Amino acid sequence: MKTANEIPYKIYLEEDEMPTTWYNVRADMKVKPAPLLNPGTLQPMTAQELAPVFCEELVKQELDNDTRYYPIPQEILDFYRMYRPSPLVRAYCLEKKLGTPAKIYYKFEGNNTSGSHKLNSAIAQAYYAKQQGLKGVTTETGAGQWGTALSMACSYFGLDCKVYMVKVSYEQKPFRREVMRTYGASVVPSPSETTNVGRDILSRFPGTGGSLGCAISEAVEVAVSNPGYRYVLGSVLNQVLLHQSVIGVEAKAAMDKYGIVPDIIIGCAGGGSNLGGLIAPFMGEKLRGEKDYRIIAVEPASCPSFTRGRFAYDFCDTGKVCPMAKMYTLGSGFMPAPNHAGGLRYHGMSSILSQLYHDGFMEARSVEQTSVFRAAEEFARVEGILPAPESSHAIRAAIDEALKCKETGEEKTILFGLTGTGYFDLVAYEKFHDGLMTDYIPTDEDLQKGFDGIPKVDL
Amino acid sequence: MKTANEIPYKIYLEEDEMPTTWYNVRADMKVKPAPLLNPGTLQPMTAQELAPVFCEELVKQELDNDTRYYPIPQEILDFYRMYRPSPLVRAYCLEKKLGTPAKIYYKFEGNNTSGSHKLNSAIAQAYYAKQQGLKGVTTETGAGQWGTALSMACSYFGLDCKVYMVKVSYEQKPFRREVMRTYGASVVPSPSETTNVGRDILSRFPGTGGSLGCAISEAVEVAVSNPGYRYVLGSVLNQVLLHQSVIGVEAKAAMDKYGIVPDIIIGCAGGGSNLGGLIAPFMGEKLRGEKDYRIIAVEPASCPSFTRGRFAYDFCDTGKVCPMAKMYTLGSGFMPAPNHAGGLRYHGMSSILSQLYHDGFMEARSVEQTSVFRAAEEFARVEGILPAPESSHAIRAAIDEALKCKETGEEKTILFGLTGTGYFDLVAYEKFHDGLMTDYIPTDEDLQKGFDGIPKVDL
Repeated sequence: MKTANEIPYKIYLEEDEMPTTWYNVRADMKVKPAPLLNPGTLQPMTAQELAPVFCEELVKQELDNDTRYYPIPQEILDFYRMYRPSPLVRAYCLEKKLGTPAKIYYKFEGNNTSGSHKLNSAIAQAYYAKQQGLKGVTTETGAGQWGTALSMACSYFGLDCKVYMVKVSYEQKPFRREVMRTYGASVVPSPSETTNVGRDILSRFPGTGGSLGCAISEAVEVAVSNPGYRYVLGSVLNQVLLHQSVIGVEAKAAMDKYGIVPDIIIGCAGGGSNLGGLIAPFMGEKLRGEKDYRIIAVEPASCPSFTRGRFAYDFCDTGKVCPMAKMYTLGSGFMPAPNHAGGLRYHGMSSILSQLYHDGFMEARSVEQTSVFRAAEEFARVEGILPAPESSHAIRAAIDEALKCKETGEEKTILFGLTGTGYFDLVAYEKFHDGLMTDYIPTDEDLQKGFDGIPKVDL
Repeated sequence: MKTANEIPYKIYLEEDEMPTTWYNVRADMKVKPAPLLNPGTLQPMTAQELAPVFCEELVKQELDNDTRYYPIPQEILDFYRMYRPSPLVRAYCLEKKLGTPAKIYYKFEGNNTSGSHKLNSAIAQAYYAKQQGLKGVTTETGAGQWGTALSMACSYFGLDCKVYMVKVSYEQKPFRREVMRTYGASVVPSPSETTNVGRDILSRFPGTGGSLGCAISEAVEVAVSNPGYRYVLGSVLNQVLLHQSVIGVEAKAAMDKYGIVPDIIIGCAGGGSNLGGLIAPFMGEKLRGEKDYRIIAVEPASCPSFTRGRFAYDFCDTGKVCPMAKMYTLGSGFMPAPNHAGGLRYHGMSSILSQLYHDGFMEARSVEQTSVFRAAEEFARVEGILPAPESSHAIRAAIDEALKCKETGEEKTILFGLTGTGYFDLVAYEKFHDGLMTDYIPTDEDLQKGFDGIPKVDL
């Protein structure tokens, strides 16, 4: 089925061709992302204010809008080489199935045990914690991809890892929990008796199943009140997008090697960690005026931050214990409908991506979940990989673009990010197979309730 | 951490370096494996007798002891290239953790959605069924790896796929079932109302949870009584070992590329599909007297076919509907203890491997499951991959051999087969974490009961 131009099914880089630096897209942005604000003073958070929560080096990365390239420390490169380069795959079989003249490529980040791209930043954050001589880190996890990745990373560096897992997920996703335990993490159902905020919530709402907001609050409390601990986060932050740039830098190196230039780059968007990483070097060329690419963010219709949200300062967490960020947001009180499967349920969006979208450097679209699962199944049957629901948002858009090419006869080159595997999402697949999955699009009234919670800060 | 000799963490072959032939180790065996017998006549099964059950080309492969190399059809090569070459990994991190001078390599077959090496043969069997113009195939599955692989393969070629899944597994492993459904397979809990044998068993044992023997009988009945259908099997058979030789041929090509010669080759052994595939080309050199390797089969202490079984003609299935094979067997009535986790619970063993073991070309050892899970966890924490319990038997033996090298100071090169991932085995991991996993070694009396069921055929 391979075509005459002899692009292999999977393009791998040799180890000596792999990226040795992360790329900081902020360095090429004329309009920088707005700074995090201290919600009390409404002043930009300083390094000093962030230091009790985050590792020193990560604070530096968070605030650095200028350094273009960060050398990746050797220890992180060593770890990356256990599962990177991730394959860049030419989707010959999907193209044939669709009968499209488009050339479709995907960068597959699910080929590591954590099952997603989250490991790229987890190992970096664990490394800097270790370098700083810390004992351990705390975090929260909902669906569990981030917690799994962080557990693996901490295990590698011998760091203590405490994961606050939303209680309903802890009970409904015991397998995710066991993967984390295999890597030596202590996994605590949240709310718990181990923190003040947890005890308080338990006394006020006995039997509650918890929430991400509460889990964040517990993880932050433990980090700041235990010497030698810091809190880490798997998305949204600038530092996370910096680490995740390895996805895009690698993809671009592999495409350059074969002279492939994408016309369209597609990624799913929740907090922005994958999308920001995938597009980084391409966006850099676009920002510098060297090349043009169509860049498309795909989000769920049930949680449409980009396409229906407000560009405003808002809290990053439902518990409102974290700094405020300027971003596309549905309001920190917004919760997607309970029938929503998988991730991408975050109310906000990376400040970097929000600014780029606001300034017209990328597009966004929303898709409904049944059409996402149809795309997932179509993809799985010909390309062999069982995709995560999150990743399948990008598959949906890639298929749609390829079908447009079929109509017009254009031979466009499409690159999309396949962020992870769906092994822990089979309850959702089952619902889909049994015809029990429905779509949900919030009404304007639903959204207004979320918007009402956005603080009235006009800066 | 990489050492001065510059062996990369992962050795990949370029597409033009990938094997294009399967290797049939039988061609180099002076003593051929004993033929399958018709249990009625006690005469070797003919191609004509096998044709109603298996595809024509597969019958030919099953009976062919002479052809050394089989060209892999282009369509199968195309499919292989979606997930092959599988990585050959230098376990630098494990070596460091163990403090061993040994050099450890593993061939990782879990990097495809089915999660194991089973796909290598599933795609071949589906291809030949398609070539023959069949409508579909039937099979049974217990733990589900084989059923998943076959579903993927049938989906790719547009074949109907009917999987009889042991009812207890169907109910306890709904996620495996959903993966198969994603690939379009019809998954039937066995015993079922869809076959005579199923209805008979249900009427005699209402509420039974089923057994692999019953599922085989149902799958075979459906295959032989429906025009355009054949039955397929994922292990034990000669044809399966032929297809799985791609593992070993690829591993050897990658090692040859870097001048690496293994001293010890280790594989887990249930029916023999992985072990037979991994060792094939190395065994070929050994049989031809060109090189010597230590080859070690690792089996569970709870199901010790090689180390405590009899070398005799026996039924391949508990239902006794299939031909008899000469092999190391615990008796077709033997069932490993219910506390046994994961696969490798087959009472018999590939006839090829049985003959090679009998003739002294390989060793075998048995290991207990808690020590297997300890090895799995140790491996996962440093190498990042969550291994299947089956694969972890090989990890256990590889670690033990590496620790012996630490004592003696020998720099041996160890190659082991990492057959798959453990995403669907987390109930077993949970048991292990919670200290609820126990070991079980059958007594001589337990084994005698199984031996009593071996037919008294002395040939």
